[in-house]
Amino acid sequence: MSQAPVNIRELLDRRKVGYSLEAPFYNSQEVFDADMKHIFGKHWMYVGVEPDVPEAGDYMTVQIGNQPILIIRDDDGEVRAFHNVCRHRGSRVCTHDKGSTGNLVCPYHQWTYNLEGKLLFAEHMGEDFDPSKHRLKPVHLKNVAGLLFICLADNPPEDFQELVDTMTPYIAPHQIANTKIAAQIDIIEEGNWKLTMENNRECYHCTGNHPELTISLYAYSYGFAPSAETDEGMKQYEEMVKERHAKWEACGLPSAEVDCLDTKISGFRTMRMPLDKEGQSQTLSTESACKKLLADFGDAAIGGLSFWTQPNSWHHFMADHIVTFSVIPLSADKTLVRTKWLVNKDAVEGVDYTVENLTAVWNATNSQDRFLVEESHKGSKSPEYQPGPYSPYTETLVEKFSNWYINRMKTLIGD
Amino acid sequence: MSQAPVNIRELLDRRKVGYSLEAPFYNSQEVFDADMKHIFGKHWMYVGVEPDVPEAGDYMTVQIGNQPILIIRDDDGEVRAFHNVCRHRGSRVCTHDKGSTGNLVCPYHQWTYNLEGKLLFAEHMGEDFDPSKHRLKPVHLKNVAGLLFICLADNPPEDFQELVDTMTPYIAPHQIANTKIAAQIDIIEEGNWKLTMENNRECYHCTGNHPELTISLYAYSYGFAPSAETDEGMKQYEEMVKERHAKWEACGLPSAEVDCLDTKISGFRTMRMPLDKEGQSQTLSTESACKKLLADFGDAAIGGLSFWTQPNSWHHFMADHIVTFSVIPLSADKTLVRTKWLVNKDAVEGVDYTVENLTAVWNATNSQDRFLVEESHKGSKSPEYQPGPYSPYTETLVEKFSNWYINRMKTLIGD
Amino acid sequence: MSQAPVNIRELLDRRKVGYSLEAPFYNSQEVFDADMKHIFGKHWMYVGVEPDVPEAGDYMTVQIGNQPILIIRDDDGEVRAFHNVCRHRGSRVCTHDKGSTGNLVCPYHQWTYNLEGKLLFAEHMGEDFDPSKHRLKPVHLKNVAGLLFICLADNPPEDFQELVDTMTPYIAPHQIANTKIAAQIDIIEEGNWKLTMENNRECYHCTGNHPELTISLYAYSYGFAPSAETDEGMKQYEEMVKERHAKWEACGLPSAEVDCLDTKISGFRTMRMPLDKEGQSQTLSTESACKKLLADFGDAAIGGLSFWTQPNSWHHFMADHIVTFSVIPLSADKTLVRTKWLVNKDAVEGVDYTVENLTAVWNATNSQDRFLVEESHKGSKSPEYQPGPYSPYTETLVEKFSNWYINRMKTLIGD
Repeated sequence: MSQAPVNIRELLDRRKVGYSLEAPFYNSQEVFDADMKHIFGKHWMYVGVEPDVPEAGDYMTVQIGNQPILIIRDDDGEVRAFHNVCRHRGSRVCTHDKGSTGNLVCPYHQWTYNLEGKLLFAEHMGEDFDPSKHRLKPVHLKNVAGLLFICLADNPPEDFQELVDTMTPYIAPHQIANTKIAAQIDIIEEGNWKLTMENNRECYHCTGNHPELTISLYAYSYGFAPSAETDEGMKQYEEMVKERHAKWEACGLPSAEVDCLDTKISGFRTMRMPLDKEGQSQTLSTESACKKLLADFGDAAIGGLSFWTQPNSWHHFMADHIVTFSVIPLSADKTLVRTKWLVNKDAVEGVDYTVENLTAVWNATNSQDRFLVEESHKGSKSPEYQPGPYSPYTETLVEKFSNWYINRMKTLIGD
Repeated sequence: MSQAPVNIRELLDRRKVGYSLEAPFYNSQEVFDADMKHIFGKHWMYVGVEPDVPEAGDYMTVQIGNQPILIIRDDDGEVRAFHNVCRHRGSRVCTHDKGSTGNLVCPYHQWTYNLEGKLLFAEHMGEDFDPSKHRLKPVHLKNVAGLLFICLADNPPEDFQELVDTMTPYIAPHQIANTKIAAQIDIIEEGNWKLTMENNRECYHCTGNHPELTISLYAYSYGFAPSAETDEGMKQYEEMVKERHAKWEACGLPSAEVDCLDTKISGFRTMRMPLDKEGQSQTLSTESACKKLLADFGDAAIGGLSFWTQPNSWHHFMADHIVTFSVIPLSADKTLVRTKWLVNKDAVEGVDYTVENLTAVWNATNSQDRFLVEESHKGSKSPEYQPGPYSPYTETLVEKFSNWYINRMKTLIGD
Repeated sequence: MSQAPVNIRELLDRRKVGYSLEAPFYNSQEVFDADMKHIFGKHWMYVGVEPDVPEAGDYMTVQIGNQPILIIRDDDGEVRAFHNVCRHRGSRVCTHDKGSTGNLVCPYHQWTYNLEGKLLFAEHMGEDFDPSKHRLKPVHLKNVAGLLFICLADNPPEDFQELVDTMTPYIAPHQIANTKIAAQIDIIEEGNWKLTMENNRECYHCTGNHPELTISLYAYSYGFAPSAETDEGMKQYEEMVKERHAKWEACGLPSAEVDCLDTKISGFRTMRMPLDKEGQSQTLSTESACKKLLADFGDAAIGGLSFWTQPNSWHHFMADHIVTFSVIPLSADKTLVRTKWLVNKDAVEGVDYTVENLTAVWNATNSQDRFLVEESHKGSKSPEYQPGPYSPYTETLVEKFSNWYINRMKTLIGD
């Protein structure tokens, strides 16, 4: 069903703080186009990890809206990104999800670029042709202790350096460069990407929906603010967190909460949080899923370092494995959620870990979240849907996502 | 292929009486959006039967355009309808086609409503939260002797009460509340909903296309007006109808034709019509498909009571079973036709009836009609299609559908 | 993803000669609609061959955009085309791809037309109805020595007669009317039709992509212009061509190049070209795929007569078989490529030829080209795609296609 044209500026201006967004933010083509232009076109996005391209010449491709992007490790070991578009007649240069190559050879007419994007060879183009004017176009890329972020803008947000500086000491102990991707699973949710993000930003829905995830998760760990109902439990939980943080920080593992989700352009939040029971990993048993740890932590029970970024990622770093999520909008009502599980690159499948056990919790959780996102999307299409109130105790991080989104759009969209 | 924008008011104004509609009425997105807003948004629609929700707590869901609707029987036995949209973050509350429940619990955060739509429980919302402002939004519903109609407008057409008053004595003897749904089959036609309705409103196409249906159908029974060609046959048929009507009405079965298809907002037509051969049922043998009749009619050969409504239904009530059809537009070129076959709720499958025999005629007929609708849709997309003349003898009820549609749109669409 | 509205006139005016087209020509809905209106709506299109409708009453249907077209051989043996739309309520009259019939009977209400499109019979229409005002609407059709072209315009381009006059002596010796269709394969490419055509108009991509096709193809045969790199090889090739042309023309086989690809409204090019090795056919062995030749050529090594037309076809005529291609746009990003292989109608499958051997080269080549078209389409959607330079030596015929397209659009689209 088509929709009346929407006035995005008006929608942004009348957004009611503390309430879910109006329907066009989830459903309209105009808003989706603006999201792709302003949110995904002008911010740093998480797209993969160093182990996606472990060796020189290894590449991966990702598609952001209508933009095919190529990420490749050059001969000096630097990871670079390019627009995956040949300068001759526009063919994609790398056509597979992943691969390894000496030079980048377009399949159409074999125009050949080196790993820095320089055009080395183009047959039949004559003497007037200037190869230096036909390099692959570069894309900004930042490597944050092994997490790869790209930005499609000419001038990326400069405050991303603060994220890099803050997060590097948190993430570095987990040694991403020393891991391999044990599993990657893509799911496509029939819902708007903002519903996927909002779902990620609260655990109000966890008790009723995530029996596997809540085995290791403390009920109060995820963005809960104390209320009359939860006052007692929260106090006990916070005492425990204080004690664990002291212990972990003494071992060189930064743990304290940092939250600038809606106060910076490159908004993020991090915190190392205790896990329940054995306290080792987000698994069904709460014990490590991989015998060979990511590094020499002494004890495997270091909880989970969580890291959330605007607009499109979240990550959990444990002693034994890392699970990392990127969200890529496909259309106003279709969203790709890509999950990667990383383990020590020397771990042996079947000996140190099994993929089934490693992925059990988040596979189940992703599937449950997909259902919730899709049902919200269906409901929010009704003309009778109206924004409802966020819980002041359990949906404060959803509010921060919505705030960030609304403010970024207000700034970028012009009048 | 996209289309030039259409001026609906101009199209309505230049409609030529006695001719099929212009192509944009079947193909354009603008007209489809207007149809959903004005025709399906402001009239009573047939959506199901009492046996869809036989017990307290039983519910069914239907989707009308982008509106998810919930139909549920409350604890007092009353059937109610609601917008199936949680007042928190918009998730659908009931996510299955059918089910049974004590309260209505949203799967997302377990907001809990009672069967009258009152919000009973919402965790973590704090003391300032007022549950009474977050009831499920109701939808108008009318129960016509067991047929369920809803209207999405704030102020539904009032003349529907005349339909209720007129039709109740016709339908009541067939005791819908005492039936069960023996079979339900959904088909999706790749054509505009108006082509589906127009196909239903004439039997000019029956001889050439419906070998199964025409076994029990008298050639002159369906909207035929006498012409030179058919004069003799019509006279004989009308004599027979007169005689049967006298007999059936003496047994308490109203039979006379009532036709206000294009003279009322809630347009409809009804008539009890003789069936050919054994005269009992729309079956391949013309005998009853179910041994246990719907009620104590004395004789099974009471023909078929037909009932047609604008904009979206038709129904045939016989002594042994009822077959009932609802039409729900899915897009400008896709239409859901939902057929339900009802039998006495005490009838035993395999003993009193078989689903195969019960559904044989209308399954075949629906499939044949789907083909005709789809071929008309394909042809009407051609820029060379132009409205052709309706037969003055066999397509008078099609003309009444088109008249009703054009007049309702003219009234509702504004200038 | 939706796109900003495009100004086609501006796009046309700023087209840079010698470069690939700007992205909206491949991606925008507005341009696609204009292509269907002006290019496919006002030029002669190739749609099939005489052996598609060998006998009186044989018909085929084709769909051009939203227009269903019927091509039928009448009782006098003349091939005619009609809009396949009943004049009653718009149903398609012929609903199969191919068939044979005495009269054209609409399936809906059996309105019956003769093979010249005259309405013979329509029941129940009354005395005032005038059948002569309800003939099937004709479509212009030209039969070029067995190749069928249609034009949807009221006034088709008159210069098509020059194509007919020029090409008839080239094609006639291959006796299409004496062939049968040994195989037909439709593929759908996920790309714009202009990318399909551009791909067809150069062999720069052949060496790297078409191992089967290049067995029989001389590297210099396809639109190559001499350059420093290829100078020596080109000279030798041209000597050979001169010698062969003299020989073939002496046998009554016109062979010289005619090229008016971008100088006429009905643009085309033809040339008889030597084939490599055995020189008989575009097969894996370069020998004839069918033992029974199309006619008495004396020697099977008569190379291949190629014939290219704007906007939508190419054809290769050999001694033993003909392979012929039509391109039909389905949407801005979907294109049907229909390939037919013709052999002598008296040839016996399994004895004189096998379908596998006959179709091996072009099946493989089509599949390879589909990949290239689809990758170009993906890349050209990127906002970072920009038109790249055509090779002045190997892409001159692509430039002629683009020139023709741009000039035709400039003339037809108005200001």
